[in-house]
Amino acid sequence: MKTGIRRRMGVEQRREQLISVALELFGHRSPDDVSIDEIAAAAGISRPLVYHYFPGKQSLYEAALGRAAQELSALFEEPREGPLGARLLRVMGRFFDYVEEHGTGFAALMRGGPAAGSGRTCAMIDGVRRAAYAQMLDHLGIPAPGPRLDLALRSWISLTETTALLWLDGRRIPRGELELQLVHAFAALAAVSAAHDDDMAAVLHRILEDEPVHGPFSDLVNRLGAVAPEPQRQPQPS
Amino acid sequence: MKTGIRRRMGVEQRREQLISVALELFGHRSPDDVSIDEIAAAAGISRPLVYHYFPGKQSLYEAALGRAAQELSALFEEPREGPLGARLLRVMGRFFDYVEEHGTGFAALMRGGPAAGSGRTCAMIDGVRRAAYAQMLDHLGIPAPGPRLDLALRSWISLTETTALLWLDGRRIPRGELELQLVHAFAALAAVSAAHDDDMAAVLHRILEDEPVHGPFSDLVNRLGAVAPEPQRQPQPS
Repeated sequence: MKTGIRRRMGVEQRREQLISVALELFGHRSPDDVSIDEIAAAAGISRPLVYHYFPGKQSLYEAALGRAAQELSALFEEPREGPLGARLLRVMGRFFDYVEEHGTGFAALMRGGPAAGSGRTCAMIDGVRRAAYAQMLDHLGIPAPGPRLDLALRSWISLTETTALLWLDGRRIPRGELELQLVHAFAALAAVSAAHDDDMAAVLHRILEDEPVHGPFSDLVNRLGAVAPEPQRQPQPS
Repeated sequence: MKTGIRRRMGVEQRREQLISVALELFGHRSPDDVSIDEIAAAAGISRPLVYHYFPGKQSLYEAALGRAAQELSALFEEPREGPLGARLLRVMGRFFDYVEEHGTGFAALMRGGPAAGSGRTCAMIDGVRRAAYAQMLDHLGIPAPGPRLDLALRSWISLTETTALLWLDGRRIPRGELELQLVHAFAALAAVSAAHDDDMAAVLHRILEDEPVHGPFSDLVNRLGAVAPEPQRQPQPS
């Protein structure tokens, strides 16, 4: 049966199959701990045949990483309709699904697996960040961001990575809470920047205008108001 | 003259001098671009003598990194008196002084210089993060943080690193604005977490209670209130 499948698989199909198998294995254990023998066994082919398609574990690892980068980038795709908070919350849900499924591999990738520090690996990780950034700009409807929106977006993307890594390290907070918290954190970072910059204030206003009363952003603003000590609130020129 | 200095310097003194010289050179150019010859010239000694103290550039680089890690950790030390916002703002000022002075080396360190991915380098960088974390807990007066304060602190430390790196990449935003923004961001992250967790709300309340009306935290709460669209604010149970 395995032989039958092998015979029918073309080169590209076989490569794709090996990448899927590798991604699955790297998702559960550190890439350093996964052997080519295991990958061969999981794919139902011989060790030499794995080497026929990939010269070594490093090249297979990089191919798996490339696939992961594509999949992660795709998570940020979301129809441009409805309030931004709800869109972001769906993106975060898919992101944590992915992190949960590929936890160990994701952590190894971000913390540095066997390919850590190699130019290609860094370029792939940066590619995912750039894809997320482009999607966010597009969601905001801002083609040419100023330096403050640039900083807010890149900071938030970095925060999202960090939060996922910290969550994986013990999973002590329910992921749903973190998904909502990251959406809130985006609003908070934008708001902090809006406090210093009129362009950012305009961005934030536009986001909040579309928000439903019970949406995640309004929720944050309400909660912040509730937490802030009353005597210190002062009227501000708007 | 140089020979006279060389004769009087003990081994430890000479090592410390070479580390200072290396840190200065690595601060302005990527460690990859700094040669042992330049380090020797800047220290006023011969190339072989550099090798007498450090077997190679990697070991000198790691020693310089160790010094940088010590200096960075020391930046977070701050008397435990007065409002937290003002304390944090002073820490951020010293941090950006350091980042400004050692920009290239700092970026190379965080983005990966010649020692990128080595266990020792990662351990040193993590050491700085742990020192910052311990100082923050001590400033907050909380010896045993729950998972949410842990996450908020580690997220904020990561955000501070990212912001400094993004600032170095073009310096398009005045650093004073970023220093204040990072203090605001700490309050915002704590507030986002406080929205989900009573312990964090208690932490935030304690911080805000000590804040002067015109301190950085109160400033943020006021500005957020000004930015939030009026119709969406609702009374919350406190």
